[in-house]
Amino acid sequence: MHTTGTADGREGPQSTAKDATWRVRRTGSDLDRLAETESIFALSNGWIGWRGTLDEGQPCGMPGTYLSGLHERRELTYPEDGYAFPQLSDTVISAPNAALIRLFVAGEPLDVTTGTLREHEQTLDLRAGVVERHTEWVSPAGHRVHVRSTRLVSLSRHPIAAVRYTVEAPDAPVELRVCSDLQANERVPNRSDDPRAASVIPDPLTAETHRRHGTGGALVHRTERSEQRVAVGVGHTVETPEADDWATETDLTDDRLRVTVVGTLEPGQRLTLTKFAAYEWAALDGTDAEEMAEHVSRAVEEARTEGFDALLADQRAALDVAWRTADVVVDGDEKLQQAIRFAVFHLLQAGRPDVDRTIPAKGLTGNGYDGHVLWDTEGYVLPVLTYLAPAMVRSALRWRHAHLPEARERAAELRLSGATFPWRTIGGRECSGYWPAGTAGMHVNADIADAVLRYAAATDDPDFLAGPGLELLVETARLWHGFGHFADDGTFHVTGITGPDEYAALVDDNLFTNLMVRRNLRGAADAVERHPEQAGRLGVRPDEVAGWRAAADAVHLPYDRKRGVHQQAAGFTEQPEWDFESTDEDDYPLLLNFPYLELYRKQVVKQADLVLAMQRFPGDFTAEEKARNFAYYEARTVRDSSLSASAQAVLAAEVGHLDLAYDYFAETVLQDLADLGDKTGDGLHLASLAGAWLTVVQGFGGMRDDQGVLSFDPRLPERIGRLVFSLRWHSHRLQVTLTSDGARYELPDAEPGTEIEIRHCGERLRITPTGPVTRPLPAVPDPGPEPTAPPTRRPTRR
Amino acid sequence: MHTTGTADGREGPQSTAKDATWRVRRTGSDLDRLAETESIFALSNGWIGWRGTLDEGQPCGMPGTYLSGLHERRELTYPEDGYAFPQLSDTVISAPNAALIRLFVAGEPLDVTTGTLREHEQTLDLRAGVVERHTEWVSPAGHRVHVRSTRLVSLSRHPIAAVRYTVEAPDAPVELRVCSDLQANERVPNRSDDPRAASVIPDPLTAETHRRHGTGGALVHRTERSEQRVAVGVGHTVETPEADDWATETDLTDDRLRVTVVGTLEPGQRLTLTKFAAYEWAALDGTDAEEMAEHVSRAVEEARTEGFDALLADQRAALDVAWRTADVVVDGDEKLQQAIRFAVFHLLQAGRPDVDRTIPAKGLTGNGYDGHVLWDTEGYVLPVLTYLAPAMVRSALRWRHAHLPEARERAAELRLSGATFPWRTIGGRECSGYWPAGTAGMHVNADIADAVLRYAAATDDPDFLAGPGLELLVETARLWHGFGHFADDGTFHVTGITGPDEYAALVDDNLFTNLMVRRNLRGAADAVERHPEQAGRLGVRPDEVAGWRAAADAVHLPYDRKRGVHQQAAGFTEQPEWDFESTDEDDYPLLLNFPYLELYRKQVVKQADLVLAMQRFPGDFTAEEKARNFAYYEARTVRDSSLSASAQAVLAAEVGHLDLAYDYFAETVLQDLADLGDKTGDGLHLASLAGAWLTVVQGFGGMRDDQGVLSFDPRLPERIGRLVFSLRWHSHRLQVTLTSDGARYELPDAEPGTEIEIRHCGERLRITPTGPVTRPLPAVPDPGPEPTAPPTRRPTRR
Repeated sequence: MHTTGTADGREGPQSTAKDATWRVRRTGSDLDRLAETESIFALSNGWIGWRGTLDEGQPCGMPGTYLSGLHERRELTYPEDGYAFPQLSDTVISAPNAALIRLFVAGEPLDVTTGTLREHEQTLDLRAGVVERHTEWVSPAGHRVHVRSTRLVSLSRHPIAAVRYTVEAPDAPVELRVCSDLQANERVPNRSDDPRAASVIPDPLTAETHRRHGTGGALVHRTERSEQRVAVGVGHTVETPEADDWATETDLTDDRLRVTVVGTLEPGQRLTLTKFAAYEWAALDGTDAEEMAEHVSRAVEEARTEGFDALLADQRAALDVAWRTADVVVDGDEKLQQAIRFAVFHLLQAGRPDVDRTIPAKGLTGNGYDGHVLWDTEGYVLPVLTYLAPAMVRSALRWRHAHLPEARERAAELRLSGATFPWRTIGGRECSGYWPAGTAGMHVNADIADAVLRYAAATDDPDFLAGPGLELLVETARLWHGFGHFADDGTFHVTGITGPDEYAALVDDNLFTNLMVRRNLRGAADAVERHPEQAGRLGVRPDEVAGWRAAADAVHLPYDRKRGVHQQAAGFTEQPEWDFESTDEDDYPLLLNFPYLELYRKQVVKQADLVLAMQRFPGDFTAEEKARNFAYYEARTVRDSSLSASAQAVLAAEVGHLDLAYDYFAETVLQDLADLGDKTGDGLHLASLAGAWLTVVQGFGGMRDDQGVLSFDPRLPERIGRLVFSLRWHSHRLQVTLTSDGARYELPDAEPGTEIEIRHCGERLRITPTGPVTRPLPAVPDPGPEPTAPPTRRPTRR
Repeated sequence: MHTTGTADGREGPQSTAKDATWRVRRTGSDLDRLAETESIFALSNGWIGWRGTLDEGQPCGMPGTYLSGLHERRELTYPEDGYAFPQLSDTVISAPNAALIRLFVAGEPLDVTTGTLREHEQTLDLRAGVVERHTEWVSPAGHRVHVRSTRLVSLSRHPIAAVRYTVEAPDAPVELRVCSDLQANERVPNRSDDPRAASVIPDPLTAETHRRHGTGGALVHRTERSEQRVAVGVGHTVETPEADDWATETDLTDDRLRVTVVGTLEPGQRLTLTKFAAYEWAALDGTDAEEMAEHVSRAVEEARTEGFDALLADQRAALDVAWRTADVVVDGDEKLQQAIRFAVFHLLQAGRPDVDRTIPAKGLTGNGYDGHVLWDTEGYVLPVLTYLAPAMVRSALRWRHAHLPEARERAAELRLSGATFPWRTIGGRECSGYWPAGTAGMHVNADIADAVLRYAAATDDPDFLAGPGLELLVETARLWHGFGHFADDGTFHVTGITGPDEYAALVDDNLFTNLMVRRNLRGAADAVERHPEQAGRLGVRPDEVAGWRAAADAVHLPYDRKRGVHQQAAGFTEQPEWDFESTDEDDYPLLLNFPYLELYRKQVVKQADLVLAMQRFPGDFTAEEKARNFAYYEARTVRDSSLSASAQAVLAAEVGHLDLAYDYFAETVLQDLADLGDKTGDGLHLASLAGAWLTVVQGFGGMRDDQGVLSFDPRLPERIGRLVFSLRWHSHRLQVTLTSDGARYELPDAEPGTEIEIRHCGERLRITPTGPVTRPLPAVPDPGPEPTAPPTRRPTRR
């Protein structure tokens, strides 16, 4: 029953009102926030990322053509250096930009900031997977043109991106010159002094070779320090009204391939230029520049032969399949309905199912955080993709596994056991320049293990689990067993590290980390017992496994008996309180206005930490503990990180504060569409977008997955009339529909005989393809008054 | 009874054997460690510092001509910047070098690395306060010359330094050219990658004006960022055999003034060039380059008129006075006898009694630590100078007071109360580029208050105490009262800071800091009550003072009941132990081989911290606690800091491990003379030299001053036959002599009627000029077996 359609089967894509929720649109009035627009309209397939720049390249917020893993390394300098401080940092660089198409109208360049802009819009079509652009422009000399373009980055063919560009001159004949460029070393402005923004390396690419062939050609460059080679090919199809009157020429230099089309367009005529690009990169070692040029040229020609319409059709087909699982219906607020689809779209296009690549914190949508991969990936993005596109999770975890050698080296350098994965990286080595909030964030190792275990529980992939998965679990377990210690009373402690909350550092027994460590140790022990032969090849000894279990069983969980709350870390609740009354609204984010000296030693929380622990480990806290903990930390959490709102939403929903949960949901899902943190221009906050899905599914759907079984304890806010989402569970699509009438669980696509077991409010349910199972929604616990957030920090009421 | 002589009155300076203990000598065989030699032979008067370079400037370890406070500022860049991270750092720069005298022998430059070096020696005469040099050299062409020089930096006239330079040619007539230079922007090599070494700013001085007059002239330069102006004048006296045959010329450029003397020297003749230099610097603002040139020129002419012999006589007279109090006699080991005199000499010449300048960690002997002032000054150096040269202490504390505005600004920037003094600085602003071991070292504020209180107790200086002293106490007390907090149980805590031990950071309730805070708060409260009117002008309210006392009374002192030891900081004794068995000898210093991540979270101590607390606050620990604490921390202290040995020596002596104390004494007193840390080339470790004196006086003399009264509980190691030292106490010189027969206390210089009260082993003694008071030495407690140090870390047995 493989129908094309969305999870919301009852309404077709024709519905105009609903259509708006499948599109994101910006017009001429948005041209003052170009960088933000470029991030929102970024197209990616997990290999290539094209920011949503204007075809003509100018004006521009920040150009960006990214290839997953392509980077250069730059020196880090410290006022006071220290042992094992990273001396080089990976920095994302732009590959040659093939998206550029410049138009000259009777000699004047099309520029939306000159002449008269009659109409201008860009639209991201979430089902078609394209960005469309329409501009009606009158040049300073008075020539009117319509320009339309359609851009795509092919989800089905990873090296391919393409753009179709048409021009019409409705009023009078006009001489046009269209320059289609492939431009290397495009100038990237340094946008800000904010430490969270990117560093820009000027002219990072060194030309190696270039070639011309047919309607285009190829450029091959290399990087100096990271020793990578990048090849980009382009080819064109030009449809001119009368071919003989139009001239085409190709101009080629080290850093630019330009195809120019010149002629005169009559009213009623249309010039269409279609450009196909192919991108590859690889390590210098073992590749050849000429071969890579040949390779991308062939890929371009294949795509050009099939044509743009075929790419469009493939794109929509791929998304139709993806949306069947991924769509989320939130009836009740069209803006949030649009926003959750936007969020899921960007998650889907960030990963790749077929190449071992991971997903940086900004995906391939911008150069924020220098293009680094952080724990956002395993902590937020993979927990979503596990249920929407598990092959992407396997790719990302295989990428981690491929970098085990660097992680083992790092552990040895730090004089630790096992493997220590980097806090931030592109190429696999630690790139954090501030170790208390970098290397000390050791939980990233347990986050990776957690992602392995979740993927293992939700899929059937024995090869991965007995291979890379096992090795990741074993090496991280070895790290923790050596890093932690047993106290005199026999309890196991992990000290001197930094948890998720970055307004605390170098703490002891961060509860989130300790619970993650316990899961890591037990998960590794279980995996070793399941795959004894493979474990033997990794040198795992039985006493080693026994040691992991002993440590896991003894993990200390700090609790303040007097206050009746868990401690984010040992002693947290005894620290001085933050003086919120004297903190002004414009003192936020606090890290820009207070020293770490003050932030670290006081009870002020940047982002959910203990609350995140309750989301991840729901079975380790009673309902009463959750309510007390939530209220306590809510009063001290300032949400200066976009990672926070989703965890707060999930726990607010669980303890029964559904209005608050809904407001947090709005904040996390609108993070980028409304540019709430004023940082969207640097790239999208994928973890926040992932958090939006987690809020829907874990917060409102009440889904939990910490016991190896899917369970649901729904909490439907009044503002949502109907909520529909799906999860992939061992290759089946479980669809969940929540209304005030109840919860409906079904397997709409499954073969007869399929059966999966879930839990609804503790009750065991068997779901089969024979029909949906429905249950009433549980009574929401009366949570009492809403917990107080610090002044000015409650999310906006929606 | 102002006799010229030393504390050791019974032996005259003629004694040859003893003479060796008043001199430090290096010969040609030491030329492979030039930088170290230059530090050891550095001459200073607290205003000017001349490193002990060869007259000819080459070969050279590291040239250095320092003026107290003269510096440039350089940018600090961080891989990940943070709020209130210092963006500029002060860096010591060289003033124009007036010590250079280059000799050309028949056209060939005197260079000890060419030709034949028949004889070469440099000698520091600790009583004369000069460095003498004698070199017998045969040029590659075969001309033999004797070169002698005597250098001094005048203790009695702060702008003046001088050098007398003579040449003889014993064998045959030889043509000589002597170039006497005043050289600005001398090239300084970057010596090392070690983070503890200095940064070098190339060409830091910009020429403003220069002038020629008489036998010399003056150069005036300015710095760009620190906005300082420096003027240096030189003048010469040339004594040639037959004046007519010799030509003298002066050559002047922006950066160099060169006086050249040319002629032919016959056997039996002698050429003597005497050079006088005067140094001044001041803020650009409010000074005038021409006036400063005139000023230094006049100072040079005055000195030149009086002549070099007068400077020599003044120098010896000043030192005669100083040594009367400062000399320490350690009978039993000539090497240590010499070393303690060397140590005291460098302390005496580091400070100034008459100009408000402080003493950097390296004094004016090198550019280590960028020439910064650290807590070494108030923590180690001033506690010695309080008893040897209290006027220097007043100057240093008035310098701190002069920088109260910057300290108040820093407190405001850090969002704290009162004043926050910099961890490291030259010009008064925080220059630390690694805040967990910089700004977080908040105890520096209490160290300053402690130095004020010690100075107050030992002297009679009501103007200082009611003025700058009071303000320093009040502003630091305000800092602590706002920074600390009361826990629910009413105890007062200081959290999130770093104590003396730099292998721990961001700890809670560092015991040393907490005790220092208590002293600071009480000392401020007492001072306010003693000077109510002046306190009123500082806006001190009665409830504020009550708050200080309440906090002081409630200060928490962490103690581990189970182990029966105090905790260096909360939880310290529960941290994992360091794996000393797996730590190799060449893993030390650990900071170069282990990450802070590991060092901070384990029980490994870089330098005395809890042990330093026991030295400073002997009354807060019982004898049993001291013994247990000492043994516990001894086993975990690796002494990777030169600040450590002296505190360990003092406590080892107190608890009765006299051999161990003696070995620590040898280590601290030989730190630089034996270049134990391989860092002496960057400048002398003044705190270690101060620690040597503290070891003698507090360790062997058993002196304690924490109760406002001098008390003694002597511990004389067997290896020391006789120990003599003096202390200034309210303008009187108390001389203490220890032999196995007993302790003798006397006031050898006092007017009749003088009386001071001291304690000997708890017994109250009145000392008057009528005669010494003698008491038997106390029985040394039986301390049991010597505590075990970590493997390879016990000090060398002497």
